[in-house]
Amino acid sequence: MSALEAMAEDGLDLNDMDALSAFVADAHAVDAAALLDELEPEQARDLLMAQTLDHQTEIFGYLYGDTQEALAHILERAKLVEIVSEMNSDDRADLYNRLTEDQRAALMPGLARAEREDIRRLASHEEGTAGAIMTSDYATLGLELTAREAIDSLRKEAPDKETIYRAYVVDDERKLLGSVRLQALILASPDTPIADLMERGALSVRLEEPQEEVARKIARYDVLAIPVINESGELVGIVTHDDAIDVVEAEATEDFHKFAAAGAIGESVRDAPIFTLYRKRIVWLVILVFANLFSGAGIAVFEDTIAAYVTLVIFMPLIIGSGGNAGSQGATLMVRALATGDVVMKDWSVLLGRELLVAALLGVTMALAVAPIGYARGDMGIALVVSLSMVIVVLVGSLIGMSLPFVLSRLRFDPATASAPLIATIADVMGILVYFSIATAILF
Amino acid sequence: MSALEAMAEDGLDLNDMDALSAFVADAHAVDAAALLDELEPEQARDLLMAQTLDHQTEIFGYLYGDTQEALAHILERAKLVEIVSEMNSDDRADLYNRLTEDQRAALMPGLARAEREDIRRLASHEEGTAGAIMTSDYATLGLELTAREAIDSLRKEAPDKETIYRAYVVDDERKLLGSVRLQALILASPDTPIADLMERGALSVRLEEPQEEVARKIARYDVLAIPVINESGELVGIVTHDDAIDVVEAEATEDFHKFAAAGAIGESVRDAPIFTLYRKRIVWLVILVFANLFSGAGIAVFEDTIAAYVTLVIFMPLIIGSGGNAGSQGATLMVRALATGDVVMKDWSVLLGRELLVAALLGVTMALAVAPIGYARGDMGIALVVSLSMVIVVLVGSLIGMSLPFVLSRLRFDPATASAPLIATIADVMGILVYFSIATAILF
Repeated sequence: MSALEAMAEDGLDLNDMDALSAFVADAHAVDAAALLDELEPEQARDLLMAQTLDHQTEIFGYLYGDTQEALAHILERAKLVEIVSEMNSDDRADLYNRLTEDQRAALMPGLARAEREDIRRLASHEEGTAGAIMTSDYATLGLELTAREAIDSLRKEAPDKETIYRAYVVDDERKLLGSVRLQALILASPDTPIADLMERGALSVRLEEPQEEVARKIARYDVLAIPVINESGELVGIVTHDDAIDVVEAEATEDFHKFAAAGAIGESVRDAPIFTLYRKRIVWLVILVFANLFSGAGIAVFEDTIAAYVTLVIFMPLIIGSGGNAGSQGATLMVRALATGDVVMKDWSVLLGRELLVAALLGVTMALAVAPIGYARGDMGIALVVSLSMVIVVLVGSLIGMSLPFVLSRLRFDPATASAPLIATIADVMGILVYFSIATAILF
Repeated sequence: MSALEAMAEDGLDLNDMDALSAFVADAHAVDAAALLDELEPEQARDLLMAQTLDHQTEIFGYLYGDTQEALAHILERAKLVEIVSEMNSDDRADLYNRLTEDQRAALMPGLARAEREDIRRLASHEEGTAGAIMTSDYATLGLELTAREAIDSLRKEAPDKETIYRAYVVDDERKLLGSVRLQALILASPDTPIADLMERGALSVRLEEPQEEVARKIARYDVLAIPVINESGELVGIVTHDDAIDVVEAEATEDFHKFAAAGAIGESVRDAPIFTLYRKRIVWLVILVFANLFSGAGIAVFEDTIAAYVTLVIFMPLIIGSGGNAGSQGATLMVRALATGDVVMKDWSVLLGRELLVAALLGVTMALAVAPIGYARGDMGIALVVSLSMVIVVLVGSLIGMSLPFVLSRLRFDPATASAPLIATIADVMGILVYFSIATAILF
């Protein structure tokens, strides 16, 4: 349920600006932003302007990119500058990337020089990399400090920082030496040197590392943030846990969509324009229509067999469907296991052997289930054709489903492109050839 | 790649205990645990015993449940008690739940009374709820303290706590009043009362709240941890961000597996026993075999039509496949959108209208693509049958795919049960009836 609907249910009148303003003032910034996202930009602006500067900045940071963009157009320039100066550096850089040249030109002169440089630097990194999601709001400490001096230094830096729970220890050239937890600083006696409190050889990621990798490391090592270093080993930013959880969720959604050959729909399914939904889905559907022509061609070859035994057609959807189903199962397990890092390229041969065994068991079970039905609808010959085809189709379907994600991964495609519909279509063609070949061999 | 393989690649000899021990001593606890998970329990125990107590405890906490269980059998009792006392309270309760009665009886007397009670309390919550993943390692503060007193109090409590970055403010009955950030305490002048620094009305979850809900809240509000309260409003634990990220990842994997009708395989696909993989997959495959009998029955009805126009069979896989593909696309979008909370039951009628429109566009496009092929392989009549069937099949398939997750959700089933293979099978039956009915009507 959207924030708007929830509030309407609570009896909040959307035309009563005073009531709305009171709600926004009391709400968590996340919920306030969810409301403003659903209003007209002018109404959102008026509500935003009625808040304290802190709350304004926080709410603005949680708004959808589209809403931020719309507000950037209609907010007073001085107010926009004020809000942007206070934003987290990563959110700010994202906003900058969405603005037009004119808007940027209007905004930038109002900002301090350090902020302008920070924005340009952060905004320059390629989408999908550590650089694109990192923030520069982290605290650093020199190796020569004591615990007391370090706390004093953090106290000075803290108001601007997204987190000071872990501070990064750097040398004179900003090379990353290690990190120290605020908890450790507070517990230590005041004169302890940082060098004694620091955890050395901190976990870090490179600027150009894919964001899924970064998220996986944050999840694996249970850390609040991970430092980002450039090719010279200098600390240039950190990626925080809240960005990691967003990446994990977005990645899973993207893979899920791809796997149903539905394209990756970045925005909400509820709000995406009809044409976007059409465009994302039609490409694969038409590709699959043409791929299916091979099934048709396969059937055409066996037209004589079919004309002689029309009963065979009755089992056709079952045979080809079963190959596709077993194939999608195999593919799903592999796509997700590759995505979470549970299996890797090297495991392929072991997994192939295991899948062969599992598929053989599945195929035999399904053949046993279907044999009596073949006998009931046809005769002993049909039963034999159907059950033999079932074993082979399930075996081959599983192998295709299991192997295709690996092949795609090896070719540096996303394994999730080995979608269920694609595998079902390949399994169809293969199933038809197997089924009617066996039928022709046995029945004629 | 497993830690073991990575190390073998690095030339580390798995029989050289000294080299292994050096690796474990220097490695991050996560990586050390990943190695021990792959060794024989006796070897793992020997390596573990060679570490410092801190490192032992940390490594032990990251081991798989199976490995922890195996080690619990063969570690000296005094050592096990020592490690368990130092573990995070949530990990400890998980371990307790995996032990046999005998093991519990051996372990518990060695622990302090407070620890025993803590374990029993945490271990008693139902799987999948906030209670089952919460920890009791959080810090609390009284409302009457000043900033300096609060820091002193945290300093005393801190060594035992998983996090002190946010401390929870409670009244005399442990009712949750709010929370205060360590950052705020450090920045404040020493005599500031907690009441002035505290954020009131803290976000919280109930003990029995499903863990996906908890994870979603942590992600939505970008918090490090969320407090858990019982029915009287008393603070009983917190759930931390690292558990939330694990829940988000596990949920996505489970939905993904369900959606391919592959069952939810809790363990690693690489390590799951063959029979487990077989068992998880065969159920749905056999159900689908029987569901497919309806397709067969449908075809049997139209045997005369087929005998007269064998060319119709050529387009059968295409028609039924297209309905299934469009249906899985629709279902995927809905299943994932329902899982992430992007859409809710109330949105159903709006989405139905949108899906009808998108499906009509998709169907017409695909009909246009397929009509010339129908003409080429058959005649004008076949072209008409094929393209008309295509529009209807895509329309109906999409509607089924889009509606089934909502229906399941309404009936309190997991929407992901509306799996791609299930929808493909339903679409098959429907497609056959539509296709041959239209053919019979037009061609005879």
